[in-house]
Amino acid sequence: VNEFDIIRECFDKPVTDNSVVVGIGDDGAVCRPDADRELLCVIDTLVADVHFPGALSPEDLGYRAVAVNLSDVAAMGGRPRWMTLALSIVESDHGWISAFADGLFEAAHEFDVRLVGGDTTSARQVVVTVQIAGDVPQGRAILRSGACPGDSIFVTGTLGDARAGLALYDNGSVGNCSVDKCSVDNHSVGDRHARFLRQRFARPSARVGIGQALVGVASAAIDVSDGLAGDLSKLLQASGAGGRLQINDLPLSEALAAKHNDDAAREMALTGGDDYELCFTSSAELERIQCMADDFAVPITCIGMVTDAPTLDCFDGDVAVDVEIAGYRHFG
Amino acid sequence: VNEFDIIRECFDKPVTDNSVVVGIGDDGAVCRPDADRELLCVIDTLVADVHFPGALSPEDLGYRAVAVNLSDVAAMGGRPRWMTLALSIVESDHGWISAFADGLFEAAHEFDVRLVGGDTTSARQVVVTVQIAGDVPQGRAILRSGACPGDSIFVTGTLGDARAGLALYDNGSVGNCSVDKCSVDNHSVGDRHARFLRQRFARPSARVGIGQALVGVASAAIDVSDGLAGDLSKLLQASGAGGRLQINDLPLSEALAAKHNDDAAREMALTGGDDYELCFTSSAELERIQCMADDFAVPITCIGMVTDAPTLDCFDGDVAVDVEIAGYRHFG
Repeated sequence: VNEFDIIRECFDKPVTDNSVVVGIGDDGAVCRPDADRELLCVIDTLVADVHFPGALSPEDLGYRAVAVNLSDVAAMGGRPRWMTLALSIVESDHGWISAFADGLFEAAHEFDVRLVGGDTTSARQVVVTVQIAGDVPQGRAILRSGACPGDSIFVTGTLGDARAGLALYDNGSVGNCSVDKCSVDNHSVGDRHARFLRQRFARPSARVGIGQALVGVASAAIDVSDGLAGDLSKLLQASGAGGRLQINDLPLSEALAAKHNDDAAREMALTGGDDYELCFTSSAELERIQCMADDFAVPITCIGMVTDAPTLDCFDGDVAVDVEIAGYRHFG
Repeated sequence: VNEFDIIRECFDKPVTDNSVVVGIGDDGAVCRPDADRELLCVIDTLVADVHFPGALSPEDLGYRAVAVNLSDVAAMGGRPRWMTLALSIVESDHGWISAFADGLFEAAHEFDVRLVGGDTTSARQVVVTVQIAGDVPQGRAILRSGACPGDSIFVTGTLGDARAGLALYDNGSVGNCSVDKCSVDNHSVGDRHARFLRQRFARPSARVGIGQALVGVASAAIDVSDGLAGDLSKLLQASGAGGRLQINDLPLSEALAAKHNDDAAREMALTGGDDYELCFTSSAELERIQCMADDFAVPITCIGMVTDAPTLDCFDGDVAVDVEIAGYRHFG
């Protein structure tokens, strides 16, 4: 079995979807867009030792590479359709490639997106680029630029978990096995929390369903990839607005709160990246947002308000707090 | 000036095209496909020291990264529309990034494709992935699988030049300057030939216009990226056919013929990759193909015939020649 066959075997799965006229195996794919919908194009790269630790399993890496792109589609209110993969690997290891493909297809199936093409190359470190084409009804994409003073600021799920989970990889407490597949013999609460946090890094929850439900409801949205403070600042800047953020209202998971003291947890929630939750603004009634949260069984928390100030101001109760907007000038 | 600003400055050019509703700067781009057209999705990666030598200038690299993808769109008869870029760089060097962007936009303008998104990351070597979305009228994409016994086999331009040009980089005879911008003080014929060959590697001619003209004329097409023999074999395999290739008819440039003896030149033409010419099959009259060649001022040469044999057989005149199909099991 040579590399060419490995790649074909792992990635060239039959696509049973009549939106894909020609899939993998020609010079390119031929896809059939729906009439009256606009196309969303997103692309994101994960580089070994920059965006993920070497201890992340290939299954999780495959899943994560798709999820981080799905998250961008979600932040625009889109439906994911087709994806292409550019995979650079150090050596052709059948087991590794096969496990990577398993994780990738797991995410693909979960979110109904089809792999239609790719390019596999060799490099000195693993570099994964996934590109997803999605769609939205014409003129309905949720942009970063629509927030208005008076809108409430919301965030899905909980924040800071991925940063705390990544730290568990960094300190060597995770072996090279998939989060999903590790057998956990010792079901202590501490182990359960650690497992949850690692999972939040390894397999981010792309909020695709919520994103689509937010079309017509959210005035602006962004996914939290670089950290809430930085990403929310980008949204507000794009909207020509400011904001008031209640850091005491940031949603924290039980696991994060159990593993870290208040200050550390809050810091991670505010500036830790990789959560891939959606941060959005809306003038809708709180009840309407709460119904959506119930429908998707995902917490959605009001964390502040859009203002006409020039900046994002953070408060702990009534006390102004100085926050360094990490992630905003992120390079990597 | 930090990295964030450099990237924004170099890549975030205003797009004046009403097919782009939202360009760079949001979570993703929003594009408006034309009704009644299908979407083509292609992706290709160039890794430093694998796909290009370190001596290739950043301008040429930027141009080339776009051109190799345009070539895939061309091979399907498509019109390029929108592209995204995933650029991994070793260090944030303003001059390098700016030069890379210049080359990328040069190709983009030449072929009317718009950069709508991207992701810039740091890595241990330069890795460039470009993804292009193109379109074709519904059901009209040229596939690899349509060749029929009796069809003639054609190739555009000349073959082997890029391989010969790459060798000029490899032996250190090219400094780190753009092919376009090198001042050539000594206009000897040898220098002119060397320059031509290097240019053929650095700035491949994407045959986009010819590809579109071949819709309805070519029965199958592929672009010559891995070498004619291997790529033509893929086309024939996809078509369930074989072929008879006249290697004495392979089109050679004056420069290649001047720089290399007959055997070496023919070998490069047959198995050297990176030419990005189109190889296609057609049952059309030779005169019709000749008119097309005249229209585009690009030679189009008949180099053989599709057969019902199980293999691609090579002939030098009437003599069968054994050819190792290099590139066919290419990994890298």
